[in-house]
Amino acid sequence: MNFNAQSLPQSGRRAIAGCLLLVAAFAPAPVAWAETTGQPQQQEQQVENFLLSNGMEVVVIPDHRAPIVTHMVWYKIGSADEPAGKSGIAHFFEHLMFKGTSTHEAGEFGRKIAEIGGSENAFTSYDYTAYYQQVSPEALETMMSFEADRMRNLILTDQVIGPERDVILEERRARVDGNPEALLSEEVQATLYQNHPYRIPVIGWMHEMEKLNRDDAVAFYDRYYAPNNAILVVAGDVEPATVRTLAEKTYGDVPRGPDLPPRVRPQEPEQNTKRTVTMTDERVSIPSVSRNWVTPSYTSAENGEAEALDLLSEILGGGTRSRLYQELVVKNRIAAGTGAYFSGTMLDSSSFTVYGAPHGAEGLEKVEAAIEAEIARIISGGVTDAELDAAKDRFVRSMIFARDNQSSMANIYGQTLATGGTVEDVQEWPDRIRAVTADQVQAVAAKYLKPDVAVTGYLLPEETARN
Amino acid sequence: MNFNAQSLPQSGRRAIAGCLLLVAAFAPAPVAWAETTGQPQQQEQQVENFLLSNGMEVVVIPDHRAPIVTHMVWYKIGSADEPAGKSGIAHFFEHLMFKGTSTHEAGEFGRKIAEIGGSENAFTSYDYTAYYQQVSPEALETMMSFEADRMRNLILTDQVIGPERDVILEERRARVDGNPEALLSEEVQATLYQNHPYRIPVIGWMHEMEKLNRDDAVAFYDRYYAPNNAILVVAGDVEPATVRTLAEKTYGDVPRGPDLPPRVRPQEPEQNTKRTVTMTDERVSIPSVSRNWVTPSYTSAENGEAEALDLLSEILGGGTRSRLYQELVVKNRIAAGTGAYFSGTMLDSSSFTVYGAPHGAEGLEKVEAAIEAEIARIISGGVTDAELDAAKDRFVRSMIFARDNQSSMANIYGQTLATGGTVEDVQEWPDRIRAVTADQVQAVAAKYLKPDVAVTGYLLPEETARN
Repeated sequence: MNFNAQSLPQSGRRAIAGCLLLVAAFAPAPVAWAETTGQPQQQEQQVENFLLSNGMEVVVIPDHRAPIVTHMVWYKIGSADEPAGKSGIAHFFEHLMFKGTSTHEAGEFGRKIAEIGGSENAFTSYDYTAYYQQVSPEALETMMSFEADRMRNLILTDQVIGPERDVILEERRARVDGNPEALLSEEVQATLYQNHPYRIPVIGWMHEMEKLNRDDAVAFYDRYYAPNNAILVVAGDVEPATVRTLAEKTYGDVPRGPDLPPRVRPQEPEQNTKRTVTMTDERVSIPSVSRNWVTPSYTSAENGEAEALDLLSEILGGGTRSRLYQELVVKNRIAAGTGAYFSGTMLDSSSFTVYGAPHGAEGLEKVEAAIEAEIARIISGGVTDAELDAAKDRFVRSMIFARDNQSSMANIYGQTLATGGTVEDVQEWPDRIRAVTADQVQAVAAKYLKPDVAVTGYLLPEETARN
Repeated sequence: MNFNAQSLPQSGRRAIAGCLLLVAAFAPAPVAWAETTGQPQQQEQQVENFLLSNGMEVVVIPDHRAPIVTHMVWYKIGSADEPAGKSGIAHFFEHLMFKGTSTHEAGEFGRKIAEIGGSENAFTSYDYTAYYQQVSPEALETMMSFEADRMRNLILTDQVIGPERDVILEERRARVDGNPEALLSEEVQATLYQNHPYRIPVIGWMHEMEKLNRDDAVAFYDRYYAPNNAILVVAGDVEPATVRTLAEKTYGDVPRGPDLPPRVRPQEPEQNTKRTVTMTDERVSIPSVSRNWVTPSYTSAENGEAEALDLLSEILGGGTRSRLYQELVVKNRIAAGTGAYFSGTMLDSSSFTVYGAPHGAEGLEKVEAAIEAEIARIISGGVTDAELDAAKDRFVRSMIFARDNQSSMANIYGQTLATGGTVEDVQEWPDRIRAVTADQVQAVAAKYLKPDVAVTGYLLPEETARN
């Protein structure tokens, strides 16, 4: 029951209001590509993708290395689809999905999973809400049966709604209001996006969460929780034909929901200003800075720009081999941490972030100037082919790790399909990454990382602010 | 055919994204109060307020000093009520109201007004859209007849919509995109409001305006243009009984529209950060700074806070007697212009703004520091009773001028009623202003003008930015 908008980046000092999982997990695909890397690989079948008669999309990723299956249902509904003034309802609903149905009492599903030694989770993001179990293959039908049941049979009474609303309010207090990084992150996001609902936090604004009620929950459930708005992803030790049979037997009984209009959200206007957002708090001990820009996503980008932004983030700030880390941490020893990330798997626009925190008594402005200099150096001088090849190789290695993990694979397909992509997009992605040129990386840096439209977040200890 | 969100403040260097008219014109009411000021006053009848049988509200403000009437229709629909992604439709619709109906061809209404020597206008703001004519009393019925006709009988074809959309796009290009002050103002507003639709410009975002179409216009017209969502305000040389008869004869024939839900918009969350918005442009010759805060409005405030904010703006920055002007312009000669304003007549929250521009070669940071010092001085030391009394007197004088102007009076009643107020609110307002204490002024300054949640806008010439 997480909402994945408050996850923390690797060594970063601030929370990101993006979908971190996406950055870490967007990954590779299958066979054809893996062969070209020359990596050892296990026998794999092709990914299969089909529709049930009620409109539910199904993706099966066979993986017979171990007797385990990952079962996920992705709903194409996230916080950016919420009605105005109802922020938090998508995440609230994720909580309510763990309540009782007309068939099973609250907690029965979870107890069943625990009994058979499985694990489960759920998460809400801007563009989707997903539910997940990992169990042995013989339990797959039971999981499907429980999941199909709660797709339509939840009992949503005030007795259920009220106490669970207290839970999400407490979750916000603990994870956001009690956390200066998270509070800053929310307002950076609200400043970065001037029009798009990505500006609204996934967990919701407190004053709106407090008013979420049974009517809101029922309307949300009836509109969005239906097989024709869902994607079933099954990865693991199971045959596609078996999945199809089980899915028709369980989910196939759930009637279609309303035909939903296209997911058209308000888009960003042209931005014309440089903005800063500063949070000063006594709980902060080390200052930090982040610089953010609106960019295209994999869904909205054209001409390989998203792939180039991914590689730019890798070269500029992806781990210890990156330019930022080498210059600021290793060589000049002015930063304790620095990096960059690009959250490309979004239905609409996305964002690019660079961050840093000073080492020891170094000033934050020195770190910020060094970050600016590294960005300017890429814009003016570009990247070398050697750097680009190394970045592609690092990507490839991280993908191999992701691919080796069954739930990562299920995640990648689910995220991609829930944000407007296709199975083919996942499979062709490594080739598209390989096709990116150094000129393209330089071009996206120049086009999107413009100083005069950047939004910079500062997290400061009390004493710094008093100077 | 103006939208009044881009008006310019008195001597200010920047456009305001507020309803300037409101600040300048919110004013006084009638008889009882005017008597206490000892000003000469003409014979006046009481303001009358009643409903037509179809739900249209009517306000009549008799004023027999000259043979003239001001006829206004206020629709309780503004840009903050627009559907998501349809920004600009309220203002666009204001333009469409000048097109042909099934009874009168396009331009006929305007020609009629010109023929009889009258004048007309219309404007759109966050909370309302209003149409206005000033004519001789014998033409009132004709005006009502034309206005009632276009309330329901517009012909909205693609042939009408397309060319008028080009007009509003050109209006945006000329008034906003070609004007750095206006562009900055838009992004300051979008940063100041993190959740409320007041963050979206009244004229609309260009990319959304470009897509406004016939379906949008028809849906908007059918939902909002109806007598039960409108207020008729007639001021001038006419008897209330006559207005009632004419109104029933014209507007009374227009059928009720749909019952609309309460105008509940997303409200602001608690704000926790200090923000800046910087626009650098070669067209700017003198830099300027504005500091902005979200505050309550007359509609949302409790305990006289809106009245206290009005007086605070007057003492701090209302004209040449204000603290800011006296300190920065007269005494220290560091500013070419400075002032403050509070836009209190809003349906939801409002905002308070302080601004300044340097004199000669003085630095902007000096002006900004001096503004901060004046605010801090009020927060720590309050205002004197003498200052407060003088501010109340200046208010009173400006109100007398407003009151002396028939269309100002019509404006005041229309704005107040369209933003949730009543005729009594207008009439009791001077007494409520008089009741404000120096402690209350100090209290609202301390409560709302907090440095750590301020949004500061900077408009800079190119060379300043390069330093």
